[in-house]
Formats: sequence, structure tokens, C-alpha cells
Amino acid sequence: MSSIKDSVHDHIAVEGVTEDLLDTPALQRLRRITQLGTASFVYPSANHTRFEHSLGVYHLANEALGHLGIEGPQAERVRAAALLHDIGHTPFSHNTEDVLEREAGKSHDDVHDLIRGSPVERILVGHDIDPDRVADLIAGDGELGQLVSGELDVDRMDYLVRDAHHTGVPYGTIDHGRLVRELRLVGGELVLAEGNVQSAESLLLARALMNPTVYSHHVARISKAMLRRATDELVGEVPVETFRRWDDYELMVALRDEPATSEYARRLDERDLFKRAVWAEYADVPDEYITADFEQRQAWERDIAARAGVSPDDVILDVPGEPSMKESSTQVVVNGEVRELGTQSTLVSALQTVQREQWRLGVYAPADETDAVGVATEDVLGLDLDALVVDVRQGIHQTLDEYGA
Amino acid sequence: MSSIKDSVHDHIAVEGVTEDLLDTPALQRLRRITQLGTASFVYPSANHTRFEHSLGVYHLANEALGHLGIEGPQAERVRAAALLHDIGHTPFSHNTEDVLEREAGKSHDDVHDLIRGSPVERILVGHDIDPDRVADLIAGDGELGQLVSGELDVDRMDYLVRDAHHTGVPYGTIDHGRLVRELRLVGGELVLAEGNVQSAESLLLARALMNPTVYSHHVARISKAMLRRATDELVGEVPVETFRRWDDYELMVALRDEPATSEYARRLDERDLFKRAVWAEYADVPDEYITADFEQRQAWERDIAARAGVSPDDVILDVPGEPSMKESSTQVVVNGEVRELGTQSTLVSALQTVQREQWRLGVYAPADETDAVGVATEDVLGLDLDALVVDVRQGIHQTLDEYGA
Amino acid sequence: MSSIKDSVHDHIAVEGVTEDLLDTPALQRLRRITQLGTASFVYPSANHTRFEHSLGVYHLANEALGHLGIEGPQAERVRAAALLHDIGHTPFSHNTEDVLEREAGKSHDDVHDLIRGSPVERILVGHDIDPDRVADLIAGDGELGQLVSGELDVDRMDYLVRDAHHTGVPYGTIDHGRLVRELRLVGGELVLAEGNVQSAESLLLARALMNPTVYSHHVARISKAMLRRATDELVGEVPVETFRRWDDYELMVALRDEPATSEYARRLDERDLFKRAVWAEYADVPDEYITADFEQRQAWERDIAARAGVSPDDVILDVPGEPSMKESSTQVVVNGEVRELGTQSTLVSALQTVQREQWRLGVYAPADETDAVGVATEDVLGLDLDALVVDVRQGIHQTLDEYGA
Amino acid sequence: MSSIKDSVHDHIAVEGVTEDLLDTPALQRLRRITQLGTASFVYPSANHTRFEHSLGVYHLANEALGHLGIEGPQAERVRAAALLHDIGHTPFSHNTEDVLEREAGKSHDDVHDLIRGSPVERILVGHDIDPDRVADLIAGDGELGQLVSGELDVDRMDYLVRDAHHTGVPYGTIDHGRLVRELRLVGGELVLAEGNVQSAESLLLARALMNPTVYSHHVARISKAMLRRATDELVGEVPVETFRRWDDYELMVALRDEPATSEYARRLDERDLFKRAVWAEYADVPDEYITADFEQRQAWERDIAARAGVSPDDVILDVPGEPSMKESSTQVVVNGEVRELGTQSTLVSALQTVQREQWRLGVYAPADETDAVGVATEDVLGLDLDALVVDVRQGIHQTLDEYGA
Repeated sequence: MSSIKDSVHDHIAVEGVTEDLLDTPALQRLRRITQLGTASFVYPSANHTRFEHSLGVYHLANEALGHLGIEGPQAERVRAAALLHDIGHTPFSHNTEDVLEREAGKSHDDVHDLIRGSPVERILVGHDIDPDRVADLIAGDGELGQLVSGELDVDRMDYLVRDAHHTGVPYGTIDHGRLVRELRLVGGELVLAEGNVQSAESLLLARALMNPTVYSHHVARISKAMLRRATDELVGEVPVETFRRWDDYELMVALRDEPATSEYARRLDERDLFKRAVWAEYADVPDEYITADFEQRQAWERDIAARAGVSPDDVILDVPGEPSMKESSTQVVVNGEVRELGTQSTLVSALQTVQREQWRLGVYAPADETDAVGVATEDVLGLDLDALVVDVRQGIHQTLDEYGA
Repeated sequence: MSSIKDSVHDHIAVEGVTEDLLDTPALQRLRRITQLGTASFVYPSANHTRFEHSLGVYHLANEALGHLGIEGPQAERVRAAALLHDIGHTPFSHNTEDVLEREAGKSHDDVHDLIRGSPVERILVGHDIDPDRVADLIAGDGELGQLVSGELDVDRMDYLVRDAHHTGVPYGTIDHGRLVRELRLVGGELVLAEGNVQSAESLLLARALMNPTVYSHHVARISKAMLRRATDELVGEVPVETFRRWDDYELMVALRDEPATSEYARRLDERDLFKRAVWAEYADVPDEYITADFEQRQAWERDIAARAGVSPDDVILDVPGEPSMKESSTQVVVNGEVRELGTQSTLVSALQTVQREQWRLGVYAPADETDAVGVATEDVLGLDLDALVVDVRQGIHQTLDEYGA
Repeated sequence: MSSIKDSVHDHIAVEGVTEDLLDTPALQRLRRITQLGTASFVYPSANHTRFEHSLGVYHLANEALGHLGIEGPQAERVRAAALLHDIGHTPFSHNTEDVLEREAGKSHDDVHDLIRGSPVERILVGHDIDPDRVADLIAGDGELGQLVSGELDVDRMDYLVRDAHHTGVPYGTIDHGRLVRELRLVGGELVLAEGNVQSAESLLLARALMNPTVYSHHVARISKAMLRRATDELVGEVPVETFRRWDDYELMVALRDEPATSEYARRLDERDLFKRAVWAEYADVPDEYITADFEQRQAWERDIAARAGVSPDDVILDVPGEPSMKESSTQVVVNGEVRELGTQSTLVSALQTVQREQWRLGVYAPADETDAVGVATEDVLGLDLDALVVDVRQGIHQTLDEYGA
Repeated sequence: MSSIKDSVHDHIAVEGVTEDLLDTPALQRLRRITQLGTASFVYPSANHTRFEHSLGVYHLANEALGHLGIEGPQAERVRAAALLHDIGHTPFSHNTEDVLEREAGKSHDDVHDLIRGSPVERILVGHDIDPDRVADLIAGDGELGQLVSGELDVDRMDYLVRDAHHTGVPYGTIDHGRLVRELRLVGGELVLAEGNVQSAESLLLARALMNPTVYSHHVARISKAMLRRATDELVGEVPVETFRRWDDYELMVALRDEPATSEYARRLDERDLFKRAVWAEYADVPDEYITADFEQRQAWERDIAARAGVSPDDVILDVPGEPSMKESSTQVVVNGEVRELGTQSTLVSALQTVQREQWRLGVYAPADETDAVGVATEDVLGLDLDALVVDVRQGIHQTLDEYGA
């Protein structure tokens, strides 16, 4: 048995198949993939990695299995899946996963081919575990896939407390111990036991507060967009399957070495970031911009740059996906019946609106070009932005924020 | 200067008038008044006192004054008021304050007469501070009364983090450091600076989650109702002005010694608590029961007891006040304008509904009498309660809760 | 199963005999016995009770039993003993235990007679547990008595972290999780497994740092000595067996009501404490003063008061026992052999000297009488104290300490 | 003013020259230099960087200056030095600094030439600050150099609490707030005020416990030695001045790309580490091995490899420097006089012996070669190691340690 000290869960015991999986290249690589990518530009102490997070997810899955009374081969599969659930992440985690999706048609939780033929496969087979069923669990499929990837998964429980611990932002501090203890399987569905409406609410509210403060802080979004743009250009030169197996180190060094991306790399290395030229609310953005594909967005970026008279490298259009609130389908037992949290909780049903309110379309450019790019964007996209957006662009009404831009 | 170690704020420096006030009987008495009263029946480690809370409130007020740039006599008055703001609490804090209100027509923040003629007055006068202006601040009046008692007061900031620290329930973990730094005075009003909608939301959400989990947990409410009932009977024998100056110790010993209350005292000492006979939602309770006065409620209790064939001592009717959500008037600067949080935040505007949903009327009785008392209550009050209430009464659908009843 | 939230261990699950024991009067009384007694005069947030500590000790014992692989009736006995281990404490815990020892010849862990005939006995017997064997374990006897009361007991592990949590002094922050996991039974002896010299050292060093900072802080010692003196006088009026069953509330109210002790009670209530007239090091104090009995010390106190011309009530002689360092016999496996920590660890063997260095004899008196009482003490006891002691008495070289005297 | 959220100190305010220094390349590079290098092989959550540590040291220096009453240009210099104190670190911090010392004759706190001609210099000069005086402070020279680099420096205070926070090992949890508040300048020397012997002891004991548990854990030492060996080979190919300005990313990618070091890189990437062939105590190692220079050690490594019949790449001899305990010269005011802590504290004087006891010479090799290499080492170095060392080599008496080897 390996005994691992963790700054969040204190002590994590690893044995059996998971112990053997620990020292595989696929898992060790996660030591060099940061959990929050560019969010550390806002929160300098947020340097935690996918490796420690994976250990945490394994730990919570293991505890949940104990409380659910699940043992034997099924439990071993879930433990393995929990530990391995992030091996498909590209460098800087979510920051570059769009590239993977566009170029390889894969999401980070599609890991069947990564496992096939690897030491991970040999170890699983050596423990009589079907690698494909583990990969299914990671994709959220299979009997207990919901525990690894679903509305009440232990992934979210771990990352909220871990991100709070490392950023210093307390909003993620949920009662994960209680959440894990109160999980139940009712009719094949993972639900929270009676008396846990507040526990469930606290999980979703924690995310609703962490989102604008950490995950979608405008500086994290700007630097993420710069990293993604640079990666887009690099991946033309490098096979996506090579890129997919890189760690943060390799990507950053490659971006520095490649002439087409070295200026982005310099800006990221020196935290010399773009600023917001446009920061538009959901209601002000026509649907077509939200649903547009990569080529269409590239075309708009080029048009905006041309209209503003700046280099195409200096304009980044950053459009988040449609706001959605799957979490409101979290299931909780209330008065003896399984119900959707969204129907039980006024707070959770409000979160759907909140997500829409927090949504922003951004256009970013070097500091001395934001005015020109802002005006050009309004023209090209036909947006009718009000005075406030111009204020943002010019730094008016901006307050001191956590090491912001 | 006194240097005090605090488990929440670490180090608190006390000097000037506040240092002199520290060792007055009025303040030292707060060492023996628990902050959460009977909530420790649910959360055994919640034994913190009004004294340590008062130090914390003083500390945060002092920090807020620094950030607001307020110095001199005005600052001294606010510091003194922050330290003294709870000297008017009766034993077990909020648990018995109804008695004070009914018998003496005073709330716990009406302390003019407590200060008059006391060592506190002598010390304030010795520092050229007008005792009445300090008492005004404690009541929330005066230029900076809002900082001591208002929507954005430091009282709430301290108690949320302190209650979280001592109960172990993480929901109260707010970013109090940021809240205090971001306070501004705009046109005489205390507001949060630009960029703090999430900070403000987190404060109100923390309370919305702590409320059902800690402050209004049904076991805390039952034991509080038992303590209040016993105190009601005792205060007939003891002048209210004497009672008002007691500490927890004196009240408990007096309740044990007085024959009319000794059985309540035994039950509280041994945690042999009443159970819920009725637990009715807001929508099911006619207005007249919510607005009824003390005598009317006493009459109903007697009627219910008679109908159930039990002793009048065995029926307690517990009706919270009308749900209200003053906090939504918290003011925040958004885009350069001061706005009410309730109009800016979907979450906060949802909290009004939440409070109504969390509201419950309770009728409590000894465990073996809840059935009879429940039926009698439906008859006497004409409530038409559904099957679920009966389930609660009989312990059906109850889950394991934090050391509940 | 009861599920209890604890501010230190988060979640404590109680079932079986321990769940039934929870709501006995003997255990519920511990809610009203503070863990650190008068140390809260120095650390205002240290208001935790023997009840929450007892839950913590039960929790750690339970975890230790799991790691040791002990189950069945033996484990049930140990769990019961862990939960009950402090029911013999007098009010304010260690502060008044001398009285119990002198008047009743009993220490706080001699609880055979407290259990006999009580609800605790009925519950134990109902679970087929021999009450006497539980009482033996509490006294440190029996197979696993060392786990409840010994060099490596879980009692110390809980109180160090709990006292750190509540005082805010970080020195008690040990790695209790690791210590509990690494316990082994070798030849009937409780030892720490290979590789734990540092873990064991950290436990003893934590105590060596907490001792002067918290447990023996001079303000805690002075107030404890005042409380003890008052109790000594009161116990003449009250049977010791009555006193023994009181809680903090009853003792304080009785001290206020009894004319002979009301002035001590007032001083304690208002934190109007005695100051040091003498504070002598071990080397300067002849052995006879350390080994003297109660009557002898009373005689010296009276002589000092007479010589100083002050009331006998105004002189308290406070002599700690001989320094001892039993902990250095903690056993650890080193290179496959069980060894005593004192022989393995330079730090731990140094602790013996440290304890001697930290030892102080104190004589306390009202602030305006310390000079007279100091001089009188030197005369009566024939101490030859140097200038420094006089400095202490006069407050010279005193620094700002944590809310000291 | 920039407002930065930190996971250890919560909120750090940066203004003036330090704010301008924040976004210099020299400082931003520290985001990509891990604080503990290979210790994350033992403690997976220890991924914090020199950047967040530098912010913490700046913050504590700033607080110390406030308590010492130092303002104006002198304070600005100290703040700048605190923020910049680690810009001279090579990749992986202390892990590779031997190379710098050997090849360039420089230690990591010799930064005069790094500042010269850089943006840092321009910013300092722009604020009327002499860059050389700042570099002097970083080297521990100048009036307040002791605060930045000395026995009571804020560097150590920050790293102990930060390393504890990120490793999860609680031993580093010191009371840094108190230490910073209690600093005094007496006769030009930085000392701790009266009443702080325990505070000072706790600082040194924290380090004495963190040392074997974290900093010199054998797995951290083995991986560090592997990284150093690989770097030694690489620096032949790369100018030391280039190497010195790299970050962790560049070093690791270069080690992978260079054929001579790619196997070391693979082993480090996959955590396929060498094991101990010899682990010898101080008393068993003749002085000549401790004082030998780099070339001599290389010669022994080659001889051992030859004798064992293995590749020279497979033998690493790892000899720490002579144990020293400068910290015992920490100065504390005791009874009005400045004294050295080593003479006042039995515990601290014991630490000198402790350091000698914790000292180990290691020889590392691939797992299947440790036996042959161990025997060869005994022959070549003429060590007479006892059975225990052989046990270590063969994994006997090894206990489960924190994710050890």
C-alpha cells in the first residue's frame, strides 16, 4: 500500500490496481499539467496539477464506494477510472482542449485509444480489469459512470475544495465529506439522501461563485484565449496526436521556439497580456456569433483586424458556449421521493438565470489597440454596445481586483 | 496595548479606550454568554461566547475604519461601540431575548441604560467619548451605525466565519477580509465598491445556507423554545432587570432550583428534548397565527394541551416572525452607480423566496406525546396538514442529521 | 447511527454502545465543563468543553482500533472507555482536581464509583460490557488501557490539536492522523511503527511548546490558583461528593453566593486577577517546598500574609509538582527493534531539562500588595531571589503577551 | 495598488516600486521555478513556485518594516529586495544550484549582474533606488540585510508555512504573525523582543522536523541527485549563463532532447527513480568524503561503477555538506539583555546534535543494481557499514512512508 500525503485530504491510501497505475507515464505526465492553466495569472498560488487532483478524485470515489457498499471488481474499475479520469487532458487542461476537439474530434474524457497498447492497459489487464469498461466510466458511461463524470461526481467535489485551497478564494469550500457520505443509488441513479437539499445547493452555489471569480475571471479568460490562439497556430506544424501527449513544459517551449507563436509565448511568459476591447453581455450578442464555428470566427477576427488597421495576430474573439445548467438535474431525495434539485430549490433554479448573466463575449487586443479594435468589432459584428463596454475597454469603473489586468 | 490571540482572526491588538473597556464587568460577563445558545445541542463544538465575538467585531470594525480612512474621535466611538455592541444580550443570547422585549420593552441593542452609571460610562467619559453616542451606534443610529448594525455590518461578517469555525459547518466561510477592504462611504451610505457583486452575494448566500443548517436547525429551535418557555415562567419570580444582567450560569442554576422550571432544566441538562408534533410550512399557516401575541399563543398552547390530554407544560408552540429579507437592500456600486443588491443579483432576489420556503411553525412535545399533540394542534388551530407532517412527527423520512433529534 | 459534526475531526460517527452512552447525564454534564478552565483568561476563544473533547478521543480511539485490527467486545470496551474517560473531572477540569484528590482520595480517572448504579452502568450492562473493565481502561489499566491513558494515548492527540484550534496557538498542530495510523501492538505494548521518530518527536515537542504558552501561562496559573483557593474554602461547606458532580455553572454560582468566596468569584468574573509577587526558578527553590503537603503550604501562606501585613485571603502559594517527563518512555520501532524514544531522540532527551527550566514557583497577591508579599515570601521561605524576580513583580521586562496580566 | 490573493497570507497589497517590479521578466520567470523541486515526488501537492513565495516574503518584510517603524527609501529598498530575493535561482531551485556555484562561482543570492542592464534595474532607478544596494540586501549585506537573509529572516518564515500548506505536513506551521510582530532592532542587530523564547524555538524546531520529513526525505534527495547529475552533463553543452536564466520547463525539455541525459529525463518524467545502495550515518563516514570536491567525487563514482560492473551513469554519490546550525545564533531579548538562543534554549542547543544525527551519505543506483553498487561502495570508499545499511538497500525495515521509494 502506498500512503500519500495530500494538502487537501491529508492522507490518501492507494493499493491494488490503483497503486500499480500510479507510476505509469500516463499518470505521471499529469504532474506537469496544471489544473487551472492560466488562472494562476490571477491567483499566483494556484499551481496545483492534474496529478494531485486525480489522487483526490480517486480518494473521494473510494470513500463514496465504501458508503454505497460497492466492493469487488466493480469497485476496482471505478477506482481505476477515478484515478485515470484526466489522462486525456491536453497541456494546460481546459485551456487547449478546443484544439483537440477540432483537430482530432475528441474530448479529454475520450481515452480509449490512449489506454490501448499502453502500460495502463497492461496493468488493468493484469488485474483482470477490462480497459474498455474503465474508459467507458471515464466518459461517464456504465453503471457508476455518474460517480466519475455526472451531476454528483466526485471530480467536481475535489476540484472545488482544491481550487479554493490553492487560490485562496473561499467560495469553493463545500462540505465534501458530507456529500460523499450521503450519496445513494436509487433505481440505478446516483442521488443525495433525504435531508440534503442544502448540501446540494451549496455544491452548485460554490460553483456559481467560483465561476466569475476564478474560472472565468477576465484575466484568466484573456490569457487562456492567447494560449489557445498560439496553440491553434502551432498545431498546424505538429501532429495533433503528438500535441495531445505533451505536457505544459513541452507546449510552452515549443511556442517559444516556433517563430509564428514566439510573440504569444513571450507575452505569456512575461504576463504582458492583451486587454479587453469588447466585453459584451449575452442579451447584446446575436445568436449567430455564439453558434459560429472556428473558421467563421477566424474570418471575423481577420475582418476586425483589417478594419482596425492592426495585425491579425492582435485580435482574439472569445465566445463561450451557450449557458447551460445541467446541474439543476442533480437528484435529491425529498420526502421519500427522488426529485430534481432544480424543481426543489429556488436558489438552484435561479442559477440558470445567473449563468446567462455571467456570460460575456470578449474581444482582446494589445493595450494600445483596444480602442481601435473595439470600434472595429462593433462595426464588423454589428453590435450596438453601450457606453459601459467602452468604459471597460478604457479601464473606467474598474476596481482593484485580485491581481487583474 | 493588549495583544490578544483569536482562533479566527489570529491576532487582535486592542489599545486606547477599547483596551480600558476590556476588563469591565459588562464585557467580561460576555465570556459566560454563549454565542449560539442551544445550537451546541446540534454542534457540540459550538461553545464560543459573545466575548470572543465582540473582540472579532471590534477587530473588523477597526480594519474597516482604516480602509475608510476614518480616524480620531469618530473612529474611537465606532471602535467602542463595536466592542460593546452585545452587552445588552440576555443569557444564551437570542434564545431568551423575547422575554426582555416583552417584559422590559427592550431589544438587546438598546443599551443606553446599561451604560449609564456603570464603569463603562466612566471609561468612555474619561476618554472624552459621549456614552449616548456610543449607545446610538450600537442601536444602528448615527453616522457609522451601519457599520456596527446594518446590512453590511461587521457583526455579521464575524459571526458567519466564527460560527463556521466552531460548528465545523463550512457554509459560513466568507471572504471577510475582502468585504472589509471593499467597504466605501458614498453619500453617507455604506456600500461595497465596484466589482463586488459576488462578494456581496457570497455573504448573503452564506447566511441562507447557515440558517437551516445551524441557526434554525430543528433541534436548536426545539431546545431554544424549551429554554424560552422555562425562562418565561422564571421571570415571573425574578425582576426582568435582574434577569437581564445574568449570565448563562446563573440562568441555568436558577432554572434548576425553581420547582416550576426544574423539569425543563433537567431535560436541557440531559439533552432529553421535546420532539416535533407539528412542523408546518408557511403556506399552510394562516396569518393570524404568525401575528398573534404572547398571551394568544399561551392560550392556544393550553387549548392544545387540554385537547391532547397532556400537561400544559408539555406543549410548546414555536412561531417564527414573518420572513423578511432586509439584506437584499445591501448596496453595491455597479458600473459607477450605487444599486441595491436585490435588483442586481438574481441569487439575492431569489433569497426572499428561499426564506419563505425555509420558514416552519413548530409544535413540540415529549416524544411519547407528539401524536396526541399533533392531532390536537390540527384541531385547535384548524390546520390541514398533510401526511408528511405526520411522517416527521413519527420520524419517518428523517435522515441522519448532524446529531439531530 | 448518530452523525456528529466536529470542528476538529469534521465528522464523527457514533453507533452501538457509544451512541447509547451519548445522552447519559454523566456525559452531557461534560458540555458544561470547559476543557482548559481558566486558560480562556489568556486565550478568549478557548471555550471548548470536555464533551467535544470526549467525542474526539472516542473518534481517534475508533480509528486506532481499526488500524490495529481490533474488533468485537474488546473494541467496544475501548470505545466506551474513550468516550467516558473524562466523566470523573470536577468543574473547570484540572483546575480543581487537587481538591478531589485531597478530600476524596481520588483522581479524575478513578470512575468506578461514578459508574456504579448510574445510567452508564445500565447501558454498558445492556450491551454485555463489564462496567468495571471500562473503568479499568479509563484508569489506564487492562489490555488497551495505554490507548486511553498512556504515553501514546489518543487523549493527548485530541487535546493538542483541539487546544490549538480553539486558542489559535499553532504549536499543538500535530499530524494526529499519521500517529493514529502508525500505532502498533508489539508484545502487548503500544508502540509507533518504523519510520516515526519524527512523528513521535513532534507530539512531545508540541506539548513542550504548548505548555509554557498555554497550559502554564502565568495568567492561567494565577487564575487557576485563585479558583482552587476559593474551591478549597467552599468544599468545607459542601460535601466533596456533591462538588464532584457539579458543573462549571454550579461551582461559579456557589462561589458567588458563599460570603467566604464571593470576593474570589467577583475577581474571576471581572478578570480582576492577582499578580505575581514571586516567580522563582527550580534551582532557587529548596526541595522541602516542592514536596510539602497542603497543610504545610497553608501555614506558609498564613505566615507570609502576617509578615506582609495583608489578609490571609490575599496570598496564594502555587507550587507545581516535581518536573517529570514520562513521555520520553514512548516506544518506537527503530531498525526493527522497539526502543524508548528518550534514548533515540536527542530532542526528546533534552525535553527533560526543558521541563525543569520551565518550572516556576509562584506567589500571587493583589496588584498593590505584590511588593510587600514578595519581600515577606523571601523572608518566610528563606528564598534568595535575584533582581529579576523583583522585576517581574514590578512589571519590568514584561513584554506584551497574549492578553496577559 | 495591486491586490493579490495568496493561499497562505490571504491578501497581499503591492504598490510603488514593488508593483512595478511584479511584471518584470526576472520575476515572472519565478512562476515557472518550483519552490521545492523534486520534493513533489514525495508530496504530490507541493507544486508551489518561487513566485508565490517571493510575494509572501515581500508581504512579511512589509509587515516587519511596519512593526519596526522603518519608512521611506530604506523601506522601499528592503521591500524591493524581499520581492526580488530569489531571482537568482536556477531551474528547480536548490536542486541545481551546485552547478551554478561550480561553473560560475556564484550562489543564487548573488544577483548584481542579473539586475544590471535589465528591466529590474530601470524600474529601481526610476524610483531613485540604487540597484546595487538592493542586490547587497539580497546577499544579506547592508543595514537590514538580516531581515531578507539572516537568522530571523522573513524568507524562512514564509517558506515554512507555505511548504506546510502545500505538502500537507503540519510541522512547518509556525506563528509567523507573532514572529514578525516581535522583531526589534537593538544596536543594529535584528532580535526577538522579550518573552519570545518559545516563538524562536518553534521556528527552529519546525525546521528540524521539516528537514528529514520533507526537504531531505530520501526520495527527494535521490531525485534531486538524479536531476543534478543530468544537469552536470548538460551544462557541458550549454553555457552556464544561459542555463542560469532557464526555467524548469526549458531544463526538462533540454534534458529530454539531449541524448546524454534523456534517460535521466525519462526516469524523472516517469518517476522511475534510483534506490539507495548506501545510506551511511555521519559517524561512519571519514571526513575526506565530506570535504572532497566535485572531481574527486566523480572519480569515486566511476571507480564504484567499475567495481560493480555497471554503467558510470548508474552510480550517484550524494554527500551533504558538514552539518551546521547557524540558527542557534538567533538573538532574543531575555531579562532585558540580548542573548543567543543557543545559550538560552536547551532545545535549540540540542538541535546541533540533531542535525548531525539526521545527516546521511547516500549512494544511489537503479533498483536491480543496488546490491552490487552497495558492496562496491564499501570496497572503494573503505566504509565499514553494518547490517542495517544492507537492510535499507534491500528494503528491509522500511515502512510505508509518504509516497516514498
